[in-house]
Amino acid sequence: MSIEKINARNQFKGKISTIIEGPVVSEIDVETPAGIVTSVITTRSVKDLELKIGTEVVALVKATEVSLAKLL
Amino acid sequence: MSIEKINARNQFKGKISTIIEGPVVSEIDVETPAGIVTSVITTRSVKDLELKIGTEVVALVKATEVSLAKLL
Amino acid sequence: MSIEKINARNQFKGKISTIIEGPVVSEIDVETPAGIVTSVITTRSVKDLELKIGTEVVALVKATEVSLAKLL
Amino acid sequence: MSIEKINARNQFKGKISTIIEGPVVSEIDVETPAGIVTSVITTRSVKDLELKIGTEVVALVKATEVSLAKLL
Amino acid sequence: MSIEKINARNQFKGKISTIIEGPVVSEIDVETPAGIVTSVITTRSVKDLELKIGTEVVALVKATEVSLAKLL
Amino acid sequence: MSIEKINARNQFKGKISTIIEGPVVSEIDVETPAGIVTSVITTRSVKDLELKIGTEVVALVKATEVSLAKLL
Repeated sequence: MSIEKINARNQFKGKISTIIEGPVVSEIDVETPAGIVTSVITTRSVKDLELKIGTEVVALVKATEVSLAKLL
Repeated sequence: MSIEKINARNQFKGKISTIIEGPVVSEIDVETPAGIVTSVITTRSVKDLELKIGTEVVALVKATEVSLAKLL
Repeated sequence: MSIEKINARNQFKGKISTIIEGPVVSEIDVETPAGIVTSVITTRSVKDLELKIGTEVVALVKATEVSLAKLL
Repeated sequence: MSIEKINARNQFKGKISTIIEGPVVSEIDVETPAGIVTSVITTRSVKDLELKIGTEVVALVKATEVSLAKLL
Repeated sequence: MSIEKINARNQFKGKISTIIEGPVVSEIDVETPAGIVTSVITTRSVKDLELKIGTEVVALVKATEVSLAKLL
Repeated sequence: MSIEKINARNQFKGKISTIIEGPVVSEIDVETPAGIVTSVITTRSVKDLELKIGTEVVALVKATEVSLAKLL
């Protein structure tokens, strides 16, 4: 199944730089022009997607999941 | 209450460039070095934080909220 | 940007049957073999994706967003 | 505490078919008429709810957590 | 469908004190012993659950949705 | 970076009473006047924030993440 377009307003393209694999979930760092974006997904998805150091991915975030804070 | 540090691994500093205000929730675009980051928060929070075009904010995303997709 | 595969473990293919449009967010019903799946996304995304009654879409849910309850 | 009704618009009834237990979180597959629905919850909740292969549960998803993608 | 128990680790019982109704989503304040807990749910759910000022409800939050911050 | 104010409508101040550390994510109980609030965050954040039993923190929840249920 190939997806043409997704509603996630926030999309950061980059390359995987770190994978910390756990028994159920894994933490993945993606190096993007915006800096490192970190994602926690299931370890089964890491395997299904065959994610490795260097794989090109896009990190996606729904707008409703983004919090805003004011700086001092 | 001032916060020293928060666990959200993904933090994007920037300036508010657009506010679309609705009766319950509002959509806010933040111009960051990583491009536009969009957030939907309650309109009450927009008022409590006194968010306006130009306000400096940080957009925060928990790592568990970030999805990853592989490109064609 | 075309996506090959996404980590969301839960994917429900279907056709849009209802769109309730609000000023900031919209509610969309997708008719799937599993019944109606309901999504709330930004109204801007509804327009960007050109979603209409009948559009074929896939509803995606991260496994970390799924709660479980035991029945009486 | 018994709950009469919950706001989650998306509810999938089924039986647990797989449990991958980790030290903090566990991944649970629920076999529903809609196919497999996968959930990640705390291992403490797995124990509190006494979830086992075959337990009847309902998988719940808030509409704000559902993303939509258009197919190619 | 009556639910016996749900995995959400964080449950706050209380009475609804405010409802701000929008066309798609509504904001609801629940007065709990822990203070006001605020929820944004679909307006359709507000109607389905027949929520009104004074209705007794329980506010539920998955542990993966809770962020932690350190104070100055 | 010090944060002045954040949009999360639900904020519970308290002291950490339990930490269950996993390889990727950890579960943290915070003792608040409202009772125990439980959070799952990355183990890297636990270390970055130097969270320990007794550390004073504030647990934050976006209003869009709060579900409501009606009691029997």
